[in-house]
Order: sequence, then C-alpha cells, then structure tokens
Amino acid sequence: MRGQETLTIVIYDVEDDRIRLKIAKTCRDYGLEHIQYSGFRGSLSATLRKELFTKLKDALAERPGRILVVPLCEKDAEACQEVSRVP
Amino acid sequence: MRGQETLTIVIYDVEDDRIRLKIAKTCRDYGLEHIQYSGFRGSLSATLRKELFTKLKDALAERPGRILVVPLCEKDAEACQEVSRVP
Repeated sequence: MRGQETLTIVIYDVEDDRIRLKIAKTCRDYGLEHIQYSGFRGSLSATLRKELFTKLKDALAERPGRILVVPLCEKDAEACQEVSRVP
Repeated sequence: MRGQETLTIVIYDVEDDRIRLKIAKTCRDYGLEHIQYSGFRGSLSATLRKELFTKLKDALAERPGRILVVPLCEKDAEACQEVSRVP
C-alpha cells in the first residue's frame, strides 16, 4: 500500500553533464516526466519524494549545484499557470 | 491594500536570449529572487501572480518555449527540499 501521492516538481541547476544526466535518470526512475531542460514533474508519495531527494542530493554530492524538490497540494497544482509551446 | 501573498516559483525554458533576459527582468520587476539558471522565487499576491504570468506569456508571444508559474501554500513551501551549493 502506498501513501497519498502529491504532484511534485523537481528543478535543478547542475553544471556537470554526467551528474545532470544521472539526476534526470533518477527522476525518470521515479516516474517523473521531463517538462523543462532541467525540470521534471509527476506524482509521488511523501516517502518516495523524500527518498528521491536523498538520491538526487547524493548524486550531486559535494559538487556545486542546486536542486529543488517542490510538493504541490491539489489546490496549488490547480492554480499553476503554464504555457508550453514546443517547436 | 494588497491581498495575501503566496510563495511563487517561476521556471522557464526559452531559447531566445533576448526573450529569456526579458523574462528574467520581468521576474525581478515583481521582486522575485533568481534561484536557478532559469528559475525565480518570491512572494506574490494572487493578482500580481496572474499579472506576472500574463506578462511572461506576452513576452514569449508565439515563440517556442515553456513557462511555469507555481504558487505554494505555506504547507507546500515548508515541505520543499533544497540543496544549494554555489561555487
């Protein structure tokens, strides 16, 4: 049985190509969808969200970079505003 | 009198340098802080958040790109997980 899932956004700024690819792969492993160059989105339980953050943090290790994992309640998810125009 | 402010995250993927700079400038004009290469964060009322989204969308116009404006309630803002290691 898994807990209640929450829409989660992951955004990151990582210079090292290898680490950036590892972060992207980890997000995909957790079922997240690639929404921007350095951004993923998908539904996760609180447990999996925390586990994912730990893995991403471990992947970055001591290298410079930024990772932000954002949970969105239903109300916030509905209030998101988006434009997406892919060439 | 301004309405209640909500933490807001803006992330974008825009290839055109001029438009990307315009989006960054607009976010700064609304008092947001630059948190990632293509990400800003700050407090905005719902009215200003919607106004900002309209300006960003207008700046992108018909060009390819993605813009996401995310409001975060207090609970979601507290549950964000972040690592920020700037060189």
